[in-house]
Amino acid sequence: MAAAPVTVYGPPLSAAVSRVLACLLEKDVPFQLVPFNIIKGEHKKPDYLKIQPFGQVPAFQDESITLFESRAIARYVCDKYANQGTKGLFGTNPLEKASIDQWVEAEGQSFNPPISVLLFQLAFAPRMKIKQDENLIQENETKLAKVLDVYDKTLGESKYLAGDDFTLADLSHLPSTHYLLNSTDRGELFMSRKNVERWWGEISGRESWKKVVEMQKSPPPRRA
Amino acid sequence: MAAAPVTVYGPPLSAAVSRVLACLLEKDVPFQLVPFNIIKGEHKKPDYLKIQPFGQVPAFQDESITLFESRAIARYVCDKYANQGTKGLFGTNPLEKASIDQWVEAEGQSFNPPISVLLFQLAFAPRMKIKQDENLIQENETKLAKVLDVYDKTLGESKYLAGDDFTLADLSHLPSTHYLLNSTDRGELFMSRKNVERWWGEISGRESWKKVVEMQKSPPPRRA
Ligand SMILES: N[C@@H](CCC(=O)N[C@@H](CS)C(=O)NCC(=O)O)C(=O)O
Ligand SMILES: N[C@@H](CCC(=O)N[C@@H](CS)C(=O)NCC(=O)O)C(=O)O
Repeated sequence: MAAAPVTVYGPPLSAAVSRVLACLLEKDVPFQLVPFNIIKGEHKKPDYLKIQPFGQVPAFQDESITLFESRAIARYVCDKYANQGTKGLFGTNPLEKASIDQWVEAEGQSFNPPISVLLFQLAFAPRMKIKQDENLIQENETKLAKVLDVYDKTLGESKYLAGDDFTLADLSHLPSTHYLLNSTDRGELFMSRKNVERWWGEISGRESWKKVVEMQKSPPPRRA
Repeated sequence: MAAAPVTVYGPPLSAAVSRVLACLLEKDVPFQLVPFNIIKGEHKKPDYLKIQPFGQVPAFQDESITLFESRAIARYVCDKYANQGTKGLFGTNPLEKASIDQWVEAEGQSFNPPISVLLFQLAFAPRMKIKQDENLIQENETKLAKVLDVYDKTLGESKYLAGDDFTLADLSHLPSTHYLLNSTDRGELFMSRKNVERWWGEISGRESWKKVVEMQKSPPPRRA
């Protein structure tokens, strides 16, 4: 299936896919995108399930390895292509790496669960004519606010989450935050916290992320 | 605070703490445990929040580094102590490592969310006299069953999740599965799937895990 060395399967509009794309762009890794159609259920076909057994996007291929799970893919890309692109994206020594990794985990474990519920309830449910669950919205707004309080404190002490450089820890937050700010009316959760607001300005201004947003607007040719 | 090289903060009964303990035991890393009292709110004190800003357990210290998030701690331990204990716990080359990591992520992203809800609803809610939410139980049982279908298929093709060796991918599932099997009546979710049942027999029989279960029964002395 793959002609370019690296292939990403999935539409750039998917948050998990766009996390991988931003990482590849930061690391200057050329890739081929197979932006297949989720609505048509292309991600549930047997051939695809061999790579991504849960039938989700993204899946990833690099020479002989296939991988799923966006954060695991991102860590692999950073390790394999350590010496190119943004060199410190996953740190330059084991201690830096571990402290970046703890924030990548915090994103996956503490930040992503409530923001995903909010995105579903506030942005997708209305489009899909599903009734919104007010209690769930309230509950997850409270959870996200608590997480953002921790971020605001941390970002008052260092420029980025894992220190004074932009890393995978920050990058990992781009996709869902972008959606929340652009497709819901809850942007205040971020903008009312001054260090979080500053941080968002910085990370969303990365060239890598601006390219991903472009790709989300107009599906690019197969080879990016 | 720490006298031994490595310190773990948190009670062994916590699932996230016991994930780190199992990893340290597999890697033959001596550690000191500070099993402080969650009921008394010791994890919300300012000094502790400096290490674990979310006020959760575990937190971890090794020489000059402090870390939080159990899976990030486990990856750090495997990397730093690569040449001791179970050498292949996080693989012996970058490709093995990436494929282990994708299953550690699957545990954190796909397996842990539904099983955590079930544990709360079925085991903790009754003890805390909180009313159970039948819809939530049903919904998460269905989600977990789907994840276990994928596991059963994978475990029909290889002995363990990431190949024919026991790795961090398997280890990461021990804490919450142990709880579900021992504190709820939903063990059938695992035992009705023949490859999952075989796998559970193998991973729960590891010496490391048996020691953790002992530690959960009788709090050990401070130095383990
Ligand atoms: N934890 C996974 C999440 C993947 C995921 O949830 N993908 C969504 C799109 S963002 C998907 O495939 N949804 C379609 C489906 O589940 O059928 C990752 O980070 O890769
Ligand atoms: N994702 C975190 C989860 C930590 C977590 O949820 N810890 C629980 C115990 S298993 C806790 O501290 N609960 C008490 C609280 O949140 O106040 C990790 O893996 O370390």
